[in-house]
Amino acid sequence: MSTSPVDRDVESPVKPDLTRLSLNQKTTNSWGVAQAVAGCVRKGIPAIGLWREPVQDIGVERAAKLVRDAGLRVSSLCRGGFLTASEPAVRQRALDDNRLAVDEAAALGAPCLVLVVGGLPDGSRNLPAARERVAEAVAELAPYAGERGVRLALEPLHPMYCADRAVLSTLAQALDLAEQFPVEQVGVVVDTFHLWWDPEVWTQIARAGARIASFQVCDFNLPIPADALLARGMMGDGVIDFRPFREAVDAAGYSGDIEVEIFNADVWAADPDEVLTTMIQRYADLVL
Amino acid sequence: MSTSPVDRDVESPVKPDLTRLSLNQKTTNSWGVAQAVAGCVRKGIPAIGLWREPVQDIGVERAAKLVRDAGLRVSSLCRGGFLTASEPAVRQRALDDNRLAVDEAAALGAPCLVLVVGGLPDGSRNLPAARERVAEAVAELAPYAGERGVRLALEPLHPMYCADRAVLSTLAQALDLAEQFPVEQVGVVVDTFHLWWDPEVWTQIARAGARIASFQVCDFNLPIPADALLARGMMGDGVIDFRPFREAVDAAGYSGDIEVEIFNADVWAADPDEVLTTMIQRYADLVL
Repeated sequence: MSTSPVDRDVESPVKPDLTRLSLNQKTTNSWGVAQAVAGCVRKGIPAIGLWREPVQDIGVERAAKLVRDAGLRVSSLCRGGFLTASEPAVRQRALDDNRLAVDEAAALGAPCLVLVVGGLPDGSRNLPAARERVAEAVAELAPYAGERGVRLALEPLHPMYCADRAVLSTLAQALDLAEQFPVEQVGVVVDTFHLWWDPEVWTQIARAGARIASFQVCDFNLPIPADALLARGMMGDGVIDFRPFREAVDAAGYSGDIEVEIFNADVWAADPDEVLTTMIQRYADLVL
Repeated sequence: MSTSPVDRDVESPVKPDLTRLSLNQKTTNSWGVAQAVAGCVRKGIPAIGLWREPVQDIGVERAAKLVRDAGLRVSSLCRGGFLTASEPAVRQRALDDNRLAVDEAAALGAPCLVLVVGGLPDGSRNLPAARERVAEAVAELAPYAGERGVRLALEPLHPMYCADRAVLSTLAQALDLAEQFPVEQVGVVVDTFHLWWDPEVWTQIARAGARIASFQVCDFNLPIPADALLARGMMGDGVIDFRPFREAVDAAGYSGDIEVEIFNADVWAADPDEVLTTMIQRYADLVL
């Protein structure tokens, strides 16, 4: 092996420790499950966070076999939730769909199902009532999930999504809800993008402890794009200081996977293999 | 006077109580101070929230005289702040400019100077350090303001502006800072747009009590526009339930002005007189 400076730069002689790295499938949005699994194997990424739609595209059993045969762990299944509808039939459909998502997570060997709980129903301004319906739905789903070995992972989303995606906005609020249930049934997601601004986040991560079901990283980019959902960026491209987050979840006792989940038009337009290369480097440099 | 249903709709026979209504000048962004003052007088709005730039356009003394001669109250001066720079010369300029803003507020008879504290300095990811510099700057400015009868009003901004406009994101955080100073020197702004999502907001408004220096209302519109600063909407056009906010600040002991402050491209493009008409109606219907 050459030892020229140029080659050292390229070949990264200190191989980064990828044992906790997981590719959330959304980061390589143009890839189906088979391609994402193959990409993880090529790059030495040991875990994958799956999404329901691409899994359903090929069938849950086939997706499970692909992941198993490749020797990958499934770090999470994204996502269930959208539990705020007040109309009984819509609500019932949401609960049924969430039970199906739990079944899929169990079949895939995913330890947790990420829940994006839903925003205000169309035309409603009753935020307390929407939050109450989330609590009722989680109470209905938690035992079902627990019996199947799947943990519901409540994800507090950035407050800019409170109206249309998640009436859970802070880690404190997610923990207040999760703590009403056994720890093996309901946990929380710590996602740097959603929580970086929160002055209470360090206290709440420490409080979360064994409730941390998933740790997701990506950056917060400025300006917020026209589609606000796509403000998530590659680590290092935005404003977040990642290492304190990783150290805080470690200190809280979390030793699980660290998922990189990026919704970003530029990342999605890039060659997914190059995205993985950058992701590994940034993970090693900025998160570890 | 006609009593036909149509006329009743148009003439609003029950005249709304406007005694606490204030026009924040930004809502009629195309108007200078003289036009905004005249608009308030025409519409029976007894108070105005001024902005430094239009005030400086005509001079502080002239602006003060216009408002005084019209018999209006000044509810606030917007705005000081931007106190997070780490570079000493930039920091000194910001402090000097804030002292000037305090002087302007005093000359205008504004009871408070609204502070948008500033985001992360360019290239920085050190949020705790930026927050520390805000605290230090407020400590330096508070006695200066207090001696001139002006209260610094710390405004927590929606977390989507944490990186570029205000590292103060919640009312709890603003109160933690404000409470380090005498109540007549440092208060807080309760702005529905910035705080509506916060599950702690009711507790924190009650805690705020006499610290409430300003109460601002406008709606949170979806989708968030390309310029995220312009997501503020006319009351009733977005997702916020206003009456609980007004009742909460009342219950906390606040009896001051209720400022309508809207940054919105459509509102700014509309005829300002029509904007005032709509504002009065929505205020009466949705806030009172």
